[in-house]
Amino acid sequence: MGKIPKLSELQQLPRAAAGSKPLHLVRRDFGALTEAVESTAAVLALTAPERDQRGGTAWAERQALRDSGLLPLAVPAAFGGPEAPWPLIYRIIRRFAEVDSSLAHLFGFQHLQVASIILFGNPEQKQQFLGKTVTEGWFWGNATNGLDNRASLIWRDDDGGYFELNGTKSFCSGATGSDMLNVTAPNPDKPAERVFFSIPTNRAGINIHDDWDNLGQRQTDSGSVTFDRVRVERDEVLGPPGTTGTPRATLRTLVSQLILIEIYIGNAQGALLNAWKYTHEQGRPWISSGVERAIDDPFTQQHYGDLWIALRGAIALAEAAASQLQQAWELGDALTAEQRGTAALAIYEAKIVAARAALEITSKIFEVMGARATATKYGFDRFWRNVRVHTLHDSLDYKLKDVGQWVLTGEVPEPSIYS
Amino acid sequence: MGKIPKLSELQQLPRAAAGSKPLHLVRRDFGALTEAVESTAAVLALTAPERDQRGGTAWAERQALRDSGLLPLAVPAAFGGPEAPWPLIYRIIRRFAEVDSSLAHLFGFQHLQVASIILFGNPEQKQQFLGKTVTEGWFWGNATNGLDNRASLIWRDDDGGYFELNGTKSFCSGATGSDMLNVTAPNPDKPAERVFFSIPTNRAGINIHDDWDNLGQRQTDSGSVTFDRVRVERDEVLGPPGTTGTPRATLRTLVSQLILIEIYIGNAQGALLNAWKYTHEQGRPWISSGVERAIDDPFTQQHYGDLWIALRGAIALAEAAASQLQQAWELGDALTAEQRGTAALAIYEAKIVAARAALEITSKIFEVMGARATATKYGFDRFWRNVRVHTLHDSLDYKLKDVGQWVLTGEVPEPSIYS
Amino acid sequence: MGKIPKLSELQQLPRAAAGSKPLHLVRRDFGALTEAVESTAAVLALTAPERDQRGGTAWAERQALRDSGLLPLAVPAAFGGPEAPWPLIYRIIRRFAEVDSSLAHLFGFQHLQVASIILFGNPEQKQQFLGKTVTEGWFWGNATNGLDNRASLIWRDDDGGYFELNGTKSFCSGATGSDMLNVTAPNPDKPAERVFFSIPTNRAGINIHDDWDNLGQRQTDSGSVTFDRVRVERDEVLGPPGTTGTPRATLRTLVSQLILIEIYIGNAQGALLNAWKYTHEQGRPWISSGVERAIDDPFTQQHYGDLWIALRGAIALAEAAASQLQQAWELGDALTAEQRGTAALAIYEAKIVAARAALEITSKIFEVMGARATATKYGFDRFWRNVRVHTLHDSLDYKLKDVGQWVLTGEVPEPSIYS
Amino acid sequence: MGKIPKLSELQQLPRAAAGSKPLHLVRRDFGALTEAVESTAAVLALTAPERDQRGGTAWAERQALRDSGLLPLAVPAAFGGPEAPWPLIYRIIRRFAEVDSSLAHLFGFQHLQVASIILFGNPEQKQQFLGKTVTEGWFWGNATNGLDNRASLIWRDDDGGYFELNGTKSFCSGATGSDMLNVTAPNPDKPAERVFFSIPTNRAGINIHDDWDNLGQRQTDSGSVTFDRVRVERDEVLGPPGTTGTPRATLRTLVSQLILIEIYIGNAQGALLNAWKYTHEQGRPWISSGVERAIDDPFTQQHYGDLWIALRGAIALAEAAASQLQQAWELGDALTAEQRGTAALAIYEAKIVAARAALEITSKIFEVMGARATATKYGFDRFWRNVRVHTLHDSLDYKLKDVGQWVLTGEVPEPSIYS
Repeated sequence: MGKIPKLSELQQLPRAAAGSKPLHLVRRDFGALTEAVESTAAVLALTAPERDQRGGTAWAERQALRDSGLLPLAVPAAFGGPEAPWPLIYRIIRRFAEVDSSLAHLFGFQHLQVASIILFGNPEQKQQFLGKTVTEGWFWGNATNGLDNRASLIWRDDDGGYFELNGTKSFCSGATGSDMLNVTAPNPDKPAERVFFSIPTNRAGINIHDDWDNLGQRQTDSGSVTFDRVRVERDEVLGPPGTTGTPRATLRTLVSQLILIEIYIGNAQGALLNAWKYTHEQGRPWISSGVERAIDDPFTQQHYGDLWIALRGAIALAEAAASQLQQAWELGDALTAEQRGTAALAIYEAKIVAARAALEITSKIFEVMGARATATKYGFDRFWRNVRVHTLHDSLDYKLKDVGQWVLTGEVPEPSIYS
Repeated sequence: MGKIPKLSELQQLPRAAAGSKPLHLVRRDFGALTEAVESTAAVLALTAPERDQRGGTAWAERQALRDSGLLPLAVPAAFGGPEAPWPLIYRIIRRFAEVDSSLAHLFGFQHLQVASIILFGNPEQKQQFLGKTVTEGWFWGNATNGLDNRASLIWRDDDGGYFELNGTKSFCSGATGSDMLNVTAPNPDKPAERVFFSIPTNRAGINIHDDWDNLGQRQTDSGSVTFDRVRVERDEVLGPPGTTGTPRATLRTLVSQLILIEIYIGNAQGALLNAWKYTHEQGRPWISSGVERAIDDPFTQQHYGDLWIALRGAIALAEAAASQLQQAWELGDALTAEQRGTAALAIYEAKIVAARAALEITSKIFEVMGARATATKYGFDRFWRNVRVHTLHDSLDYKLKDVGQWVLTGEVPEPSIYS
Repeated sequence: MGKIPKLSELQQLPRAAAGSKPLHLVRRDFGALTEAVESTAAVLALTAPERDQRGGTAWAERQALRDSGLLPLAVPAAFGGPEAPWPLIYRIIRRFAEVDSSLAHLFGFQHLQVASIILFGNPEQKQQFLGKTVTEGWFWGNATNGLDNRASLIWRDDDGGYFELNGTKSFCSGATGSDMLNVTAPNPDKPAERVFFSIPTNRAGINIHDDWDNLGQRQTDSGSVTFDRVRVERDEVLGPPGTTGTPRATLRTLVSQLILIEIYIGNAQGALLNAWKYTHEQGRPWISSGVERAIDDPFTQQHYGDLWIALRGAIALAEAAASQLQQAWELGDALTAEQRGTAALAIYEAKIVAARAALEITSKIFEVMGARATATKYGFDRFWRNVRVHTLHDSLDYKLKDVGQWVLTGEVPEPSIYS
Repeated sequence: MGKIPKLSELQQLPRAAAGSKPLHLVRRDFGALTEAVESTAAVLALTAPERDQRGGTAWAERQALRDSGLLPLAVPAAFGGPEAPWPLIYRIIRRFAEVDSSLAHLFGFQHLQVASIILFGNPEQKQQFLGKTVTEGWFWGNATNGLDNRASLIWRDDDGGYFELNGTKSFCSGATGSDMLNVTAPNPDKPAERVFFSIPTNRAGINIHDDWDNLGQRQTDSGSVTFDRVRVERDEVLGPPGTTGTPRATLRTLVSQLILIEIYIGNAQGALLNAWKYTHEQGRPWISSGVERAIDDPFTQQHYGDLWIALRGAIALAEAAASQLQQAWELGDALTAEQRGTAALAIYEAKIVAARAALEITSKIFEVMGARATATKYGFDRFWRNVRVHTLHDSLDYKLKDVGQWVLTGEVPEPSIYS
């Protein structure tokens, strides 16, 4: 893997030279990573519609992500990693989501798990978990659904002392086929808090169920995991600082929210590019339009203008938010609660705009393609289905309310697993 | 089958007594037909989500439609039929579309084929085809896609003289399992015109292909039909008046457009009712909402208000348009081109409003249900998929433009297969 | 004044014959009242833009309303009035609002005051107040702002016993130049309730202030009224039943809400018709449009289609709601709380749709006219200003929430001065 | 006047520290110019609502702009000017438009006239006109309306040879009270082209009419100018390169379009800040809201969230576009047609988004303030009126179509006076 570009190289908005159709629309430049990213994206694109139909685990494509060398991107240089800036990581997630939203999600959540170690772990834990992410090529999964409190820890004094984990977690994206698993459970001492720990996926008592069958994000392996007397070592519980020890630790939620945003945008972009290709290759003008080519219809042009502008607005706010997250990240422990909150608000704004844009774009592409584009063989509805599922991850209504509350009062949102 | 209610009994807007939840939302009263409609709807509802997944032909449910006694509804009393008014037929289509959009489409198109005979046929043809629709219980299919000109007729002088039909038609909803087939092809004498004829589905040379696999309306059997030297008798070609002989004949397109409208509305209504039930039974308030029950969340209430109002607006315009169509229909041959055009505009308006409302409602229901409602077992996305497919039937952009043109100039749209 | 048409004659949707431009767009038929309505509308139209600029009281046009013979329209036949059905009254309000929103408001509120007597008064009061409305040609004003509690009544035992009224009321539309005034104040015995009384405007101690200077509805004389030891007789306090004695009495709010709705729709209609005329007479196509006439531009046609459909949707729901109000009205004391609530919901739905449509239409007309149409001499912004002011009368957010709450629970809104 | 900040200092998005209400919403930092900008803005703010009512010329405020020292901002250092980067100039225009949209327009168009000299003039003309703009403190006006072809030049051989200018121009913003005037007229030799010349406003034969009376932008002095045998010297006609000699010359339209964008955004920002203040100081919660303070109402919070996000989206795209314009500007004569086109598209996108956002925000602010906020004394409708007028400057429909066309074909718009 080549040189990681500097942040400043990534901040230009993605407007490539016009003329190279449809590549005048998107930027395919990831600096030294371009080849790794593009060749992986090509592998994902190959069978994405079929795999979306099929659901289940994409073993080959998970392996392609491992082979890409991109899994340790977020690991800091101090632990042997490339320490890619977040804006670059997000652009790669978007690129993958353009062709395969499920695998992009798994890829994004890999970096979220790595970020969790960076933010929550103590120095030894970072050395251990981040180092091996690089040297062993670990692929991380999670069982950290914050709305599901069915997993519990109890302390066992026997056998040197350890926590015993029992129960179930749902929406465990990426658990299947992972090497390591981040898990949360209520703190046995202070049940209102949760502890966060990292354990090998193959530890005795962990059962990962193939029970994810939802209308979108179908290959995210987001099923349930059950824990039957699973042993968790004291030093596998991350911290200090743990999940809330510092403003900086609470950046994890923001890292996570921006992954969702890029999944939305990637789907929107993929939808638009697919529509573009279809309109060019198979589009027919309406019988009373008076034009010969679909691309000359004034209403079709108008729709493309609208879809593009919606996408551009989402990208502009998402990139500004990613840049702000990076600044907050680089402040390290100097980050104040206020600065953290300000970054959160930029991300909320981007999320609301991106969610709306992606829902609109992924539905309206059909209006520039026409009835024949609804054939199952194209799978063009998968973009909408992916976005529809993913925009329900946490309440957008309350994100919007939080923005309004801040506008009115200047009070930033309280950090939590969703804010 | 009991007494068919008079038009005047059907014109009240569908606001039932409040309190009977959620039946305060919709009217389930079809006069003397109520039992037949409701028991058939119940059969369709039973397996609709599973069948949507499966696609293919719904043989049992097609039989349920036959058994319902509702297939000859549109046949005039003069030919032994119940001559149900169109507003009633549309409300039944909506009711079926609420639970099973594909079968509602087949049901609606049955009446469209019957209407075609009424409008295009000469007295002998009406006697023959409409009479047998009642006595034999015929289920009609079609091969009349107006954008597909791959089927052609040639006149053969031998064997008493007949037309020979060759070629292919796509989007042939309801052909599978039908008794009779309406087919169009260019007039061999005047290729700019098309002729419309009715032939038995089992006639030699007709091949119905099981090749419909699209993202919505999955059990409408809307695949292709090929014709290999199929014999068409001179008196199977409908007319005079045929398709364009009188303003009245051109009402067929309007009958057809209102079927589409009711499919949109039925899906929207079904989506809303399913969401209602889910919110009540499984809904959870957002963690920061401060309320105990999902139904007490102010934003959830707001969303339901918005979805309901969108539905109500669509129903109000659709029912006004259906009532206007019925008036035009009852004028018979006295109908002027201007009156026909005025009815067309009311239908255009209703169509645009219903399409927008249905796309919005079927997508936004997820926002009042949340992520867990995306499980495939619920199949809640089928409403959006059905509407997404069906709203592409013909260009809404040009319908809107036609409305605007009429506003500006007072000129009504020229009748055609889509206008 | 001629024969008042029956309700059934008014229920067709307003689609006139096409061709009579732009009269194909609106209906100008008010049965026997057509001449009175149209000649009064013509007077109002004459100077409406200038008077909008000027503000203040439109003395001449108030007199034109008096001269029209239309002020007693709502008075029941039993008291010598024409007992026009509400849907007809609303259509006349809409017609006036199309040209002069302020005077339409005064005209509408006249009927609201008459309705208050009908609903709240005891038999003697009705005989007295309604009878004289016909015989004396009374023009009614109001001082009943329910959010302003600065007026109070106290009981005086001296001089035969009477109430003394002191304080101030704001937003007293139509007080200026009125013969009679409806006023509300907290019940001195039960301050949570309010009493409603009718007094001559020229009674000692009443001061009407010319202090209404707002951005829209500029000639509604909606300023403040102060009361300085005003004597109110016991039998001038309406009731029983008074304001809340029966479900029927609470219909007053619904009568009032539908007036607002028709003001919105009238402004929207006026805006659209003015734009229509401007586009035809002065519109220029955009330089790159490739068309010669503004009316041939596809985007202009699209905009007109959109504006028209928005208007039509609002009218359809408003007319359905008015028809439902009329049915509730005719039930008299048999009206149940549930039936009243169901009518309220139909009105809420219409109000939300009409408010949104009117805000959109009155702003977007400029996009089909262009920059030159912003000259003050045209006064085309008055439609938006009127709607913008009037749609703030009471909270639409909470109307929408109430609709959603009813959808979810079947509970109708509690009657109040705004619901 | 202090040091002009570098471009890089201006590129952060305008998110100030939260807490300083409402200054957490906007940035008031213009580097070394902050004091000049803020003290001028304070002067403009003082009487803006009254002057909006009055219309006519704002002599005192025009003088304040002269006194600010900011008029020569765009003059290059080579001619003694501060050569402020365009993004800074645009942010100052936005700041002024927040309080006084008319004066902001005059201020913006000053820089547009200066840009015209920079782009169109030959070295001697730049030396002359730009130099004196600094040394004499020239305030520039224009008579360059590209849709008005009523002014014409003819060549006179007498008196040393000169052009004679006759006719009229409309929409001549800033002509009143100006020192110099930029004027366009068809090229007498090639009527399809236009020539652009700079003449002293007080030259014999120039008559500036006080005939601007439109519903918004009321103090922009955008009335008509008539020319009666006005002498124009050969060397007052700018060029080479003139208006179209190089891709760079055509940047003038882009400079102009971004001024419009910032006028929209400034009005939107001003509207939001005024609403903010009103909600805090005078807002009342709705009676059924159950909260004590208006700012605690969930729907009010939601509205503020929506308005803010709309504003933020507009700002993000406008700043990105301004930054792209600056890059294009700095390329000088190396700028290619493709690069110029790409910058144009970024500006189109920003314009469409800003126009929509500003129309929405300036209308919806009333929904978070309520009916009492419509009092004329507040003048809160001026924001909408300004935006409504200014967004009609040139067709947004065709800007959107051009974006769509580019998306579909990669072809950038042909440079013109509006594109």
